Amino acid sequence: MSAVAVLAGGVGAARFLDGLVQVVAPQDVTAIVNVGDDMEWAGLHIAPDLDTVMYTLSGLVNPEMGWGVANDGRRVLDRLKSLGGPAWFTIGDDDLATHLYRTQRLREGAPLSTITAELCERVGIECRVTPVTDDRLRTVVQTPEGELAFQDYFVRRRAADPVHALRFDGAEAARPAPGLIEAVEQAEAIVIAPSNPFLSIDPLLAVPGVREAVTASDAPVVAISPIIGGAAVKGPAAEILDSLGHDVSALGVARLYDGLADVFILDEQDADLVGQIEAETSLRCTATQTLMSGPAEKRALAQAALAEASA
Amino acid sequence: MSAVAVLAGGVGAARFLDGLVQVVAPQDVTAIVNVGDDMEWAGLHIAPDLDTVMYTLSGLVNPEMGWGVANDGRRVLDRLKSLGGPAWFTIGDDDLATHLYRTQRLREGAPLSTITAELCERVGIECRVTPVTDDRLRTVVQTPEGELAFQDYFVRRRAADPVHALRFDGAEAARPAPGLIEAVEQAEAIVIAPSNPFLSIDPLLAVPGVREAVTASDAPVVAISPIIGGAAVKGPAAEILDSLGHDVSALGVARLYDGLADVFILDEQDADLVGQIEAETSLRCTATQTLMSGPAEKRALAQAALAEASA
Repeated sequence: MSAVAVLAGGVGAARFLDGLVQVVAPQDVTAIVNVGDDMEWAGLHIAPDLDTVMYTLSGLVNPEMGWGVANDGRRVLDRLKSLGGPAWFTIGDDDLATHLYRTQRLREGAPLSTITAELCERVGIECRVTPVTDDRLRTVVQTPEGELAFQDYFVRRRAADPVHALRFDGAEAARPAPGLIEAVEQAEAIVIAPSNPFLSIDPLLAVPGVREAVTASDAPVVAISPIIGGAAVKGPAAEILDSLGHDVSALGVARLYDGLADVFILDEQDADLVGQIEAETSLRCTATQTLMSGPAEKRALAQAALAEASA
Repeated sequence: MSAVAVLAGGVGAARFLDGLVQVVAPQDVTAIVNVGDDMEWAGLHIAPDLDTVMYTLSGLVNPEMGWGVANDGRRVLDRLKSLGGPAWFTIGDDDLATHLYRTQRLREGAPLSTITAELCERVGIECRVTPVTDDRLRTVVQTPEGELAFQDYFVRRRAADPVHALRFDGAEAARPAPGLIEAVEQAEAIVIAPSNPFLSIDPLLAVPGVREAVTASDAPVVAISPIIGGAAVKGPAAEILDSLGHDVSALGVARLYDGLADVFILDEQDADLVGQIEAETSLRCTATQTLMSGPAEKRALAQAALAEASA
């Protein structure tokens, strides 16, 4: 196995990638990362999923949270609070430097993909991490309270609103980041990381050309369920599955990936769903340990995904 | 003496104001502050003169530098440097919170004058501090190397370029901040602080209506020389006087304020220039201690300015 392309959201994807680069050469891995969660905060461009992937792969990440920088400072945010400023979005001092760097370079006219490569190089990441697009793409959440910007829904309102629908503002006009389609075309395996299908994977597929490249590829497409035992490891995937009328289970996720993926990996806790998924969908389905509680589990899941791709 | 309006730049003006609010009721003081030095830095709106005035009047200021926050952290800037980011402009961690607050509020549509009032209230400032305008006004420095944005000239290139001319981009279309003209009209004394005439005072006067209001006022206009013994206390005023062909002395400054001010205060070191200034200009001229090395000197200079205004 050499080239692997990974469709990636935040924490789950980052952990999967962290295992993957232990079992294949990092240079052969391309992480295609969601930017639908990106936001402007006090004039700064914040890219939560890119940051989570970058902090995780560089070892900087706060291991308890799965995002942010370990042992980060709170001086700036505390001072901002004391000034009456916007403090609902948690940003540490080291983390802030990333946003300042990114924003400065964007102002200089650099594309987000270039800036991401620069940051990754600085923190010693050897695999390729790219935003799905350099263009503006924003996830908008439709709720009974009206449309909410993603971070408003997710952080400020704590993902408490029922989700009627999602739309990806700007997606239609967005172009895939440079080299991204080629990376998918050249991949010998494509992995859909254990990320939120609606909030992380759908925005990637909404960029014209991405879904088509995945579908057209001869390489096996392996999807990993982010739902274990009817609950999401992280984030609001379960609530959104429910809100949108899907089965809140790995089965519900498998149905979403039917026609896109070839193989579906679910957690061993959900092994009883394998038969039903294989009966109901065109997916080959397998159960393994998917909870990535440490380096060994991360590596094992990456190996399992590659084994399924080669099977 | 009640209402006093002060035309203000950065460090020198801030120190003068710090003395003034000790000798008149702060509520009667309006500081009209230069924004020609403002800049965008990594997407943030930085207003150096407003910050210097605010940090000084609130007691937060770094007393050695005369700007920035005392005992401020360097965590974010150090991290930004390690990422290869723009680190030529020194911004401490607490200082950064001010810029984040200001930028967030600007993005929300609040005018700079409102934001400045909010920040001043938060840090306990009782006098009125207002930018000269809520509109965009940027000092551009014309040098042999071409036009330079002010902070490029001043910080990045350390004010080392000869200055051929200055222009105030946006000034013609800028409107005085709300209430500013009324504050000048109602002032019983107008003080031109010991600031750089070209970089701090000229941009204020370049906003249509400001010079006219100062000139039309019946109140005495007292200007304080920022040049002592042929040198500036702070900043490049001496170099710019020289570059532009003016006498590098309090005399050179007095000539610039002839027709605008009624009284000119210079340092006791320059007392020998009083006669020449009074002979050559329409200014009444007086010498006193103008170096504001501590609270007592600040108060004394404020009292001297008010005494001249009442004389």
